[in-house]
Amino acid sequence: MTVPKITMKVLQAIRRNKKPLSKAELVQITGLSLVTITEHVETLIRSDLVMDFEVGHSTGGRKPRLLSFNAEAGYIIAVDLESTHVHVGILDLTCSIVVSRSSLIDVAHGPKAVLEQIKDLVLLLLDESGIDHSLIKGIGMGVPGPVEYSTGLPASLPIMPGWDRFPIQRFWDQYFDCPCYVDNNVYTMVLGEHMVESVSEIDNFIFLKVGNGIGAGTICNGKIYRGASEYAGNIGHNNIGHDLLCYCGNRGCLEALAGGRAISRKAELIAREGKSKLLHEILQRKGKITMDDVKLAVREADPVMVELIRECGFQIGSVLAGLVNFFNPSLVCIGGSVTETGDVLLASIRQAVYQKSLPLATRDLVIRSSYQGDKAGIIGAAVLTVDKIIDDSLIRTKEGIYSFSYK
Amino acid sequence: MTVPKITMKVLQAIRRNKKPLSKAELVQITGLSLVTITEHVETLIRSDLVMDFEVGHSTGGRKPRLLSFNAEAGYIIAVDLESTHVHVGILDLTCSIVVSRSSLIDVAHGPKAVLEQIKDLVLLLLDESGIDHSLIKGIGMGVPGPVEYSTGLPASLPIMPGWDRFPIQRFWDQYFDCPCYVDNNVYTMVLGEHMVESVSEIDNFIFLKVGNGIGAGTICNGKIYRGASEYAGNIGHNNIGHDLLCYCGNRGCLEALAGGRAISRKAELIAREGKSKLLHEILQRKGKITMDDVKLAVREADPVMVELIRECGFQIGSVLAGLVNFFNPSLVCIGGSVTETGDVLLASIRQAVYQKSLPLATRDLVIRSSYQGDKAGIIGAAVLTVDKIIDDSLIRTKEGIYSFSYK
Repeated sequence: MTVPKITMKVLQAIRRNKKPLSKAELVQITGLSLVTITEHVETLIRSDLVMDFEVGHSTGGRKPRLLSFNAEAGYIIAVDLESTHVHVGILDLTCSIVVSRSSLIDVAHGPKAVLEQIKDLVLLLLDESGIDHSLIKGIGMGVPGPVEYSTGLPASLPIMPGWDRFPIQRFWDQYFDCPCYVDNNVYTMVLGEHMVESVSEIDNFIFLKVGNGIGAGTICNGKIYRGASEYAGNIGHNNIGHDLLCYCGNRGCLEALAGGRAISRKAELIAREGKSKLLHEILQRKGKITMDDVKLAVREADPVMVELIRECGFQIGSVLAGLVNFFNPSLVCIGGSVTETGDVLLASIRQAVYQKSLPLATRDLVIRSSYQGDKAGIIGAAVLTVDKIIDDSLIRTKEGIYSFSYK
Repeated sequence: MTVPKITMKVLQAIRRNKKPLSKAELVQITGLSLVTITEHVETLIRSDLVMDFEVGHSTGGRKPRLLSFNAEAGYIIAVDLESTHVHVGILDLTCSIVVSRSSLIDVAHGPKAVLEQIKDLVLLLLDESGIDHSLIKGIGMGVPGPVEYSTGLPASLPIMPGWDRFPIQRFWDQYFDCPCYVDNNVYTMVLGEHMVESVSEIDNFIFLKVGNGIGAGTICNGKIYRGASEYAGNIGHNNIGHDLLCYCGNRGCLEALAGGRAISRKAELIAREGKSKLLHEILQRKGKITMDDVKLAVREADPVMVELIRECGFQIGSVLAGLVNFFNPSLVCIGGSVTETGDVLLASIRQAVYQKSLPLATRDLVIRSSYQGDKAGIIGAAVLTVDKIIDDSLIRTKEGIYSFSYK
């Protein structure tokens, strides 16, 4: 099991380097010996993941050769499913997006209808990009809730009727001859953010997703942290002491006050009571208020809605303040659909953290919006998939060749 | 840097095995090759940390040899300083306690006076045990607050005037010719608990210290977790929404309501107001109420004091519930002086966690009192010290021999 890690390290060094590089440079970057580098580079070349080519003139002797990552040795389908919308993308093996698209969706329609809708979107993207089905090497999918990671089966969640232990991987098997990995989308989001160059060196950070649900993905000592039974990060149900009933059956959950669903519901009430003229008009016209209307109202500086988002941000920040005391990260990234309301949310989250955390724990802490934005989930799903494919292939073919052929 | 880790792995396997064992058994336990085992065992024998001896009859050929850890190759002085008391122990290299003693102390008297008092206690223990000064190979000390681990300097804490960046190591240098390591005592406590055999296999757990301060030491993916700037675990200042002023200058801190100091203060008020007959009598007699009086009152089932501890436990459990959602540990151990009040505290902590955490996150969660009890801190300080000595010696002498000689 140490072999894949070193091969991965070499591959990552080649992947992350912006320009082609020599073995000597790899020695410098990785701290590994030339013999080790050579051995692992050969494995990677045989697997088609790394290309080598001659360059320039040599000063006598053999011509120097450079190595570069073959990003187009294959492509990944990445899906970031939220309860009311979905992001789908085709990414190359460096996890750069080739094409992507978003769509409204309702997870409550059940896995079959929802997955069919996503599949149609995927086929459309493949068509658009001209990428052949045979080049798809893996499918990564994030879902808005806990997943038994080893089996890819989602756990029971009241907001997702019918999804409990639904075999998502088997659905995709009907259409694509490649492995599929399913994960909680707070984990894929933190992996996506970790691909940002300035973030990749940060060992301890939290990605805070504020969507319909609120959750935290954590990188701990440089690695994704899943917890003892793969439920780490479910902070949406942390108790903040109010009296509203949450869908989980408890009262006082953060999500029941500050999650996207709770905000839309509250906004509809505000509209109905006529406290916001703008929302009242929208309600008259459309008959309901969605998160998009909330975003519009906040952008238009509707005072009641700005106040609502500010209060939500402060409550989220208060929970985060406790986590900062406990976990002492150096970075907290905020993402998810509610963050699209703008800077008010971030400002009030920061306010609460700086007020309620120990100054010692926030001295060097950066709290900012995700650089990857709404793409964090699909990028992370691709990262997860590429990593898993490489690991699994290595385990499967004992001669140390990444086969990249499934089954 | 991979060499020390493997040597440590071999050493730990020998240390943790209750009986002497053969190289073949080591191969089985560690999964390392016989060649690797032999190489590292030789290093360990040369350093006097491992003894090998012939046993029984061979079936022809060389007689079989067994390996055992030389626990008495040296001893460690371990100190667990709390704000109102101190535990001191002499431990062998397996971190078993040879002698130990506790004493009342007041950190507010400043580092010089306090360290002198601890030093006298150490000299007494050495005398008592008959262990020669030259056999002391290291000093480990836990203090009740953040420490800059790389330098061993404590951070500024209002409850510890004069300790800010005080060079504790330099104090011990005057009396012992060996390295000294200083750490936050929530970290030493979690390390101490990790030495319990059934706990050593647990990768993700929290040691919750409820003393005058409240803090959490965390083992994450099998290793102590210190955070981005070594302040992880300071949950005593998590906000629980009350209005009491904490010594940190903030209002609403957990510690200001449920820490030992807050409990004693509240108990004195209760005594003064005559709400507890027992405490009222003690106050009349002694003029003040300490944590020991609180323990007595709770043991005597004084209803007002039981209610107070129950309320404190519930508040501590409410903060813990949020951490359980976030971190999803498989074990939470409760230790520290306040836990000596008995089972009421533990019961109310559990009640809050099971009420306020997600059932998914608590399904396999065990919450219990520390098995190491008030010895967790000194055992952990010794663990830290033995590990560091071995690592540092290895780094110092490049030929791979643990010198165990300082300077």
